[in-house]
Amino acid sequence: MKLLVAKSAGFCFGVKRAMDMALEAAKKYPKDLCTLGPLIHNPQAVKFLEQLGVKVKNRLENIPRGTVIFRSHGVSLKDLKKAREKKLHIIDATCPIVKKAQYFAKFLYRHGYTVLIVGDPHHPEVEAIQSDIKDRVEVVENVETIQRLGPWEKLGIVAQTTQSFHLFKEIVTISLEKAKEVRVFNTICQATTIRQKEAVEIAKKVECMIVVGGKNSGNTQRLAGICREIQPNTYHIETVKELNPKWLAKREKIGLTAGASTPLWTIKEVEERIRTFKSRNH
Amino acid sequence: MKLLVAKSAGFCFGVKRAMDMALEAAKKYPKDLCTLGPLIHNPQAVKFLEQLGVKVKNRLENIPRGTVIFRSHGVSLKDLKKAREKKLHIIDATCPIVKKAQYFAKFLYRHGYTVLIVGDPHHPEVEAIQSDIKDRVEVVENVETIQRLGPWEKLGIVAQTTQSFHLFKEIVTISLEKAKEVRVFNTICQATTIRQKEAVEIAKKVECMIVVGGKNSGNTQRLAGICREIQPNTYHIETVKELNPKWLAKREKIGLTAGASTPLWTIKEVEERIRTFKSRNH
Repeated sequence: MKLLVAKSAGFCFGVKRAMDMALEAAKKYPKDLCTLGPLIHNPQAVKFLEQLGVKVKNRLENIPRGTVIFRSHGVSLKDLKKAREKKLHIIDATCPIVKKAQYFAKFLYRHGYTVLIVGDPHHPEVEAIQSDIKDRVEVVENVETIQRLGPWEKLGIVAQTTQSFHLFKEIVTISLEKAKEVRVFNTICQATTIRQKEAVEIAKKVECMIVVGGKNSGNTQRLAGICREIQPNTYHIETVKELNPKWLAKREKIGLTAGASTPLWTIKEVEERIRTFKSRNH
Repeated sequence: MKLLVAKSAGFCFGVKRAMDMALEAAKKYPKDLCTLGPLIHNPQAVKFLEQLGVKVKNRLENIPRGTVIFRSHGVSLKDLKKAREKKLHIIDATCPIVKKAQYFAKFLYRHGYTVLIVGDPHHPEVEAIQSDIKDRVEVVENVETIQRLGPWEKLGIVAQTTQSFHLFKEIVTISLEKAKEVRVFNTICQATTIRQKEAVEIAKKVECMIVVGGKNSGNTQRLAGICREIQPNTYHIETVKELNPKWLAKREKIGLTAGASTPLWTIKEVEERIRTFKSRNH
């Protein structure tokens, strides 16, 4: 059996940084420490942090005092102001690449463009990107949506940092039919593009593809979606417990990758289980 | 026999305007009147103008005095200056849509972008668009060329006004992989896009497609190319003399379109000849 493990699987720079900041905060501020929303979209990692005293609060109203960590997806200007008014101690773990996407969205808006965000309208990152823009903003997560929109004179485009580059290109292409001027800032994180490309390469070579990551993780869902288009035997699992031996039986080549918010330990557990199963059944 | 004639065939707004300006000039300035290069890319129309006293001069050096008409494709800043220095009387028949493309190319250059012009590097319009930009400029007429270029920080894209919108979109898509910021002004003339779309629709329905226009006309060549991809029995002819009856024999559905610089009389001649041939052979 051959197991192809993606080099790019797991924590990206922004997630690693947010985790490091949270772990350090857990040491420094053991009392009244929380994150505004789960720090990353991985229940296992969030549980681990909770054991160290980092609580999850979903609304600023429920944080009367102490230290609040803004997660890697960023926060709205409204929440930032509210946290300041409440005189909370803020640790801003917003991914610098997400910050850039927020900056470019506002830049485009201020320069008179209608802002089109390629992303999931319900994802906290996208909510943060668009939160400071009152009008002239559209969130588009598929080709069908943009077909219904426009026309515009000046259209500015940014992307949720973990979006599919393929979808991004498709949407820019369609927008050229709908606006005289199209100004695009490619805010997709390099690590996401590399992870997606490597996953595609692996999926082409294997008979079964395992994608590990939070079920609530948008980038893991997309990663699984991209793999499934190439290899229908693609399975998105959160932990090793979900790994079904039936998927692996009779497969000679298996691929493994993971989303940007999947801890290394979770990936390693899955990898070990696959190797053990295959060595026993060979 | 069914003959489908494109409504969008023939003179576009810019060509019509240039012709009108030349005809008026022929009346007003019967002495020392010339165009700098052929007014439009149609030898028959140019010959017609010559009969009215509008000569063609290819270099400003050969125009000692009198009135010079700048053609629809535009002129370089250098030629404009030279003509002014020589105190020639200038009639500027540059198409306003071409003027816009020139403006946006310079605008992008001044704002620090590398300027990418989607177009034929040897076409006078493209030469005029890039003539005032010293560096940071690339002319790309196919997908292969852009693959070899870049990367860039800031890339600005405009198009030759009669370019294929399909190629334009392909090149913008590839550029997204090569630049962090891509700013696109769609300078393709609406009439060109409409003409190309209508030609595609007709080509899908017929067994033979006739495209009329100057052999030296880039937009006619592209129109024929687009039709040929759909209907291999596509023939690009300049005048009715080239129409080969063999092409039409046994064809029940025939399509007819023409480039932006093809006079109506030339199209009508071809149309009549097709109808006569088919009514005789039916």
